[in-house]
Amino acid sequence: MPRKIILDCDPGHDDAIAMLLAHGNPDIELVAVTTVVGNQTLEKVTRNALSVARVAGITGVPFAAGASRPLVRSIEIADAIHGDSGLDGPVLPEPEIELDPRHAIDLIIDTIMEAEPGEITLVPTGGLTNIAMAVRKEPRIAARVREVVLMGGAWGGGNWSATSEFNIIIDPEAAHIVFNEEWPLTMVGLDVTHQALATPEVAATIEAIGTGPARFVGELLEFFGETYRDHQGFDSPPVHDPCAVAYVIDPTVMTVRKAPLDVELTGTLTLGMTVADFRAPAPADCTTQVAVSLDHARFWALVVDALERIGAVEL
Amino acid sequence: MPRKIILDCDPGHDDAIAMLLAHGNPDIELVAVTTVVGNQTLEKVTRNALSVARVAGITGVPFAAGASRPLVRSIEIADAIHGDSGLDGPVLPEPEIELDPRHAIDLIIDTIMEAEPGEITLVPTGGLTNIAMAVRKEPRIAARVREVVLMGGAWGGGNWSATSEFNIIIDPEAAHIVFNEEWPLTMVGLDVTHQALATPEVAATIEAIGTGPARFVGELLEFFGETYRDHQGFDSPPVHDPCAVAYVIDPTVMTVRKAPLDVELTGTLTLGMTVADFRAPAPADCTTQVAVSLDHARFWALVVDALERIGAVEL
Amino acid sequence: MPRKIILDCDPGHDDAIAMLLAHGNPDIELVAVTTVVGNQTLEKVTRNALSVARVAGITGVPFAAGASRPLVRSIEIADAIHGDSGLDGPVLPEPEIELDPRHAIDLIIDTIMEAEPGEITLVPTGGLTNIAMAVRKEPRIAARVREVVLMGGAWGGGNWSATSEFNIIIDPEAAHIVFNEEWPLTMVGLDVTHQALATPEVAATIEAIGTGPARFVGELLEFFGETYRDHQGFDSPPVHDPCAVAYVIDPTVMTVRKAPLDVELTGTLTLGMTVADFRAPAPADCTTQVAVSLDHARFWALVVDALERIGAVEL
Amino acid sequence: MPRKIILDCDPGHDDAIAMLLAHGNPDIELVAVTTVVGNQTLEKVTRNALSVARVAGITGVPFAAGASRPLVRSIEIADAIHGDSGLDGPVLPEPEIELDPRHAIDLIIDTIMEAEPGEITLVPTGGLTNIAMAVRKEPRIAARVREVVLMGGAWGGGNWSATSEFNIIIDPEAAHIVFNEEWPLTMVGLDVTHQALATPEVAATIEAIGTGPARFVGELLEFFGETYRDHQGFDSPPVHDPCAVAYVIDPTVMTVRKAPLDVELTGTLTLGMTVADFRAPAPADCTTQVAVSLDHARFWALVVDALERIGAVEL
Repeated sequence: MPRKIILDCDPGHDDAIAMLLAHGNPDIELVAVTTVVGNQTLEKVTRNALSVARVAGITGVPFAAGASRPLVRSIEIADAIHGDSGLDGPVLPEPEIELDPRHAIDLIIDTIMEAEPGEITLVPTGGLTNIAMAVRKEPRIAARVREVVLMGGAWGGGNWSATSEFNIIIDPEAAHIVFNEEWPLTMVGLDVTHQALATPEVAATIEAIGTGPARFVGELLEFFGETYRDHQGFDSPPVHDPCAVAYVIDPTVMTVRKAPLDVELTGTLTLGMTVADFRAPAPADCTTQVAVSLDHARFWALVVDALERIGAVEL
Repeated sequence: MPRKIILDCDPGHDDAIAMLLAHGNPDIELVAVTTVVGNQTLEKVTRNALSVARVAGITGVPFAAGASRPLVRSIEIADAIHGDSGLDGPVLPEPEIELDPRHAIDLIIDTIMEAEPGEITLVPTGGLTNIAMAVRKEPRIAARVREVVLMGGAWGGGNWSATSEFNIIIDPEAAHIVFNEEWPLTMVGLDVTHQALATPEVAATIEAIGTGPARFVGELLEFFGETYRDHQGFDSPPVHDPCAVAYVIDPTVMTVRKAPLDVELTGTLTLGMTVADFRAPAPADCTTQVAVSLDHARFWALVVDALERIGAVEL
Repeated sequence: MPRKIILDCDPGHDDAIAMLLAHGNPDIELVAVTTVVGNQTLEKVTRNALSVARVAGITGVPFAAGASRPLVRSIEIADAIHGDSGLDGPVLPEPEIELDPRHAIDLIIDTIMEAEPGEITLVPTGGLTNIAMAVRKEPRIAARVREVVLMGGAWGGGNWSATSEFNIIIDPEAAHIVFNEEWPLTMVGLDVTHQALATPEVAATIEAIGTGPARFVGELLEFFGETYRDHQGFDSPPVHDPCAVAYVIDPTVMTVRKAPLDVELTGTLTLGMTVADFRAPAPADCTTQVAVSLDHARFWALVVDALERIGAVEL
Repeated sequence: MPRKIILDCDPGHDDAIAMLLAHGNPDIELVAVTTVVGNQTLEKVTRNALSVARVAGITGVPFAAGASRPLVRSIEIADAIHGDSGLDGPVLPEPEIELDPRHAIDLIIDTIMEAEPGEITLVPTGGLTNIAMAVRKEPRIAARVREVVLMGGAWGGGNWSATSEFNIIIDPEAAHIVFNEEWPLTMVGLDVTHQALATPEVAATIEAIGTGPARFVGELLEFFGETYRDHQGFDSPPVHDPCAVAYVIDPTVMTVRKAPLDVELTGTLTLGMTVADFRAPAPADCTTQVAVSLDHARFWALVVDALERIGAVEL
């Protein structure tokens, strides 16, 4: 039986690829997509999510818009990386599906509460504002989800500051809430996603698929590769968000370490750092873990397989 | 035309008196009551709110329960002041009205969005978790409310720490959200409420009314007076929350100063301090003000008048 | 027997007047003057101290230069208030005395350790860098001084931020050290010094003395009055630093309240706030107190008296 | 010509070995030893330093005691690791040399100012209180030392908290001062010193030397190994402090990375973290670097060689 996930995202190039992976992979059932301010404004990332749904041929899945700003801090977007639209590069088709009228936090709550206990996995790939607000509005979802597998954070060095990763630092209070809830939580952070490089070989393999969705991914990677080269000095772009989806599909695609995890809220240099305590074996009741290494080949094989299964989509 | 208010509270002795004042005063229309963890757990303060509704004879007003814990911090209650029930002292009657099924933040949002712009005044007398979550879920309420008049904070010295007042320090992040929204905000804090003492003369006047609600208030003041004497060294208890309602009824009952206001989130000694900048005249676009002194006689006259108008209530 | 004081200062208009008060008053014996970066650079305030010594006719007292920068933070000076020289207004005479070769912290330590226990009072009127370093280098001075009477801090609102006073916020870590040592400490802060206004009547009285030093003070007050009017909106300038000296001369010139005192080091809005806990009577072992009100007439009478005793000084 | 170093230390098992390495190695000239509170109280670590001098046969080198407490924080010692004496394990001989009468910060300042520019290297292996106070008392030493090579800090995980190393977290303000001065600074932290394990093979090699000093080191390692096993789960103890000395002797014994470095002062989870920014190549004017890996064999060969050169010492 496929794993049911709610994808909470801010597309975003890598979010788009995460959507395609979740849609194309047979072991995942995408039961809802929610959007949150992050890589771009809420309006833009929501429009992007709907466009990607059309590219991927996703239908029958509710999409809802969520938080338009972080809990406490001011909005900070990543337009240097994702462009003015948040998904620069390919031409974005007009969305065909309509937004669910509910707020994302209500769609998240309703989906979890209406499902069986342990049925839904939360996969946030943006800032954690929606997830934090959902669990504060309906605390029972913490015990009812199967687990949270999120893209965000970093143990061995950040990208938006020396210590901190973008998804966490843009709403550290929300991240603090999510990291301290009692659900099982896997942090798929930069330690792993900086290994998920879309090398020229990866790009060539995707191009060879030859379908519209594959071409769309190719164009995303081209733009993303350029901004990552210009702004962060990467030879090939790290494709963060699908890593979290890949972990849900097959946890053996990466290695993880159990460790107490928390988010720094008051540091001058370290605001938004995801602090893992690796000094001793994690206590028996520890419910948090950190992904530390990735099987690059198997990860990209999952993405390629999903694109092949999606096949050609008529726009 | 009476002013329509949503009372967001955590009864609480002084919250109960605030409800009675709002209900009995002809210039106020209580359009919703929402509850939030604070003086006691959400379950207890919600039960208390419904009991007070029965004591006061409040009907036809929706009551909804809200946040059961602060946004980021752990729960801290004030049972030393308010007792194990949160409203120790009088016998609490069984509630007769039923809770609205909505979460408090949805009742707040719906009430404001369904009313005319500028029609609803928010009167929070507890921690600001509900208000913060409501404005983050539906940012348009900020421009649509008439104003926020809250009991909380302190400029000249706190009660829960040297600098900070209970309602703010129990959820400083929520307070930071509320104090930084663009709505007009009046902070009715300890600077004023520590002048709202229920002296023996006040207690005698209330007792002389002779009705059930007045006796109920008398019993509240008796218990509240004891805990304030034992725990904070007050001769007579300061009755905080009705001050915010009194300001809505008649702003001339206190003096206020315009000043930029913010909430300290990272201070070691000053967490939750409400910082007013009085160094210069407030800028023209300043929308926040601080109440600084109270007309004790006129304030209590409003409370007595409300109790007299409520009259006898059949339990 | 006069009280022996070490004046640790950063002249500065009000520091200069503090020097004159200490020199002219018969109940004070100035045993050392040390300088510290603050109102201006160390070089400038040290030169100013020596010039003021000549104006006042101070001889036989060692002067030593101390810290050229705060412990942890970057240098912040108050040239908007004190001008480019740190003592703009009057013509400054060439110094005639030479600096003691010791570092200020060694002069402070030596003076205290060579005196009898309880003999020396420390009177800092600038940032607390020298005092903090002295007590860390020689911890025994804490038990050996009589007391510390400092100009700095504020309980009811700051001047360099909404909550904080200049002398404290420019080196909050040093202030934290000084406020937490075990010596008796009296904080003469803005709560009092903003009452020490050099009104036109005060200025006229000083002018009427007719001596060189009095004219010098008159010129200081004229410049100081202008910058305080332009930058902080005062009608007459508050003359901070002599207040600390006046307290040593006659503690009854102001009222003080015992209270635990500490300095905020991590606040975003409240860095450098001097936090007094007035919620309950100070504990019996409390060694800190806050000056809260000033007898304006008697304070200025002390200054006038000192200037009259100094008389004419030949330059 | 041997490199002249001032060793500022808190012996401490690994400090003692650092002293022996510095004394025995022909490329190092130990020109002063200063002590600072850290692994134990100032009194104990100073006594230990003098005892180790006798064990090692160090004569003609001034030893001075320094700070008995950190700048701002309370004293925190590491008696669980170093025992009640700070150097538990071997019998400590009575010291024979007398302390220099100067405070450590004056010995440091005098030594540097009396030497040629660029002649002295500072090697702190304890908390940085002395070094911070020295450079604040005499700022010119920053430009006059050759470099600072310190044992302390960690990039990839701490030992005294999840992120922070003991020497830094016990006086983070002092560390902040030292890390932000303009001298060239090499941080030899846990990233390297946790590779400097005294394995059974190392211990056997040292034992085989057969001299008194070697036996002394053997006994130190035995005790240190036990506490590190019991308290931190190490199979063999990491011998931190000699790593800094080894770097001065031969920088090729470890690899270093240039990077901006700073110390976190306000973090709740990250206080005292040494934050390196590895996101981009270090700017051209960067004067700080982090040691990241150690040549274990060559490091221990240096220690063994030093012990062999010291030979037998008559007690």
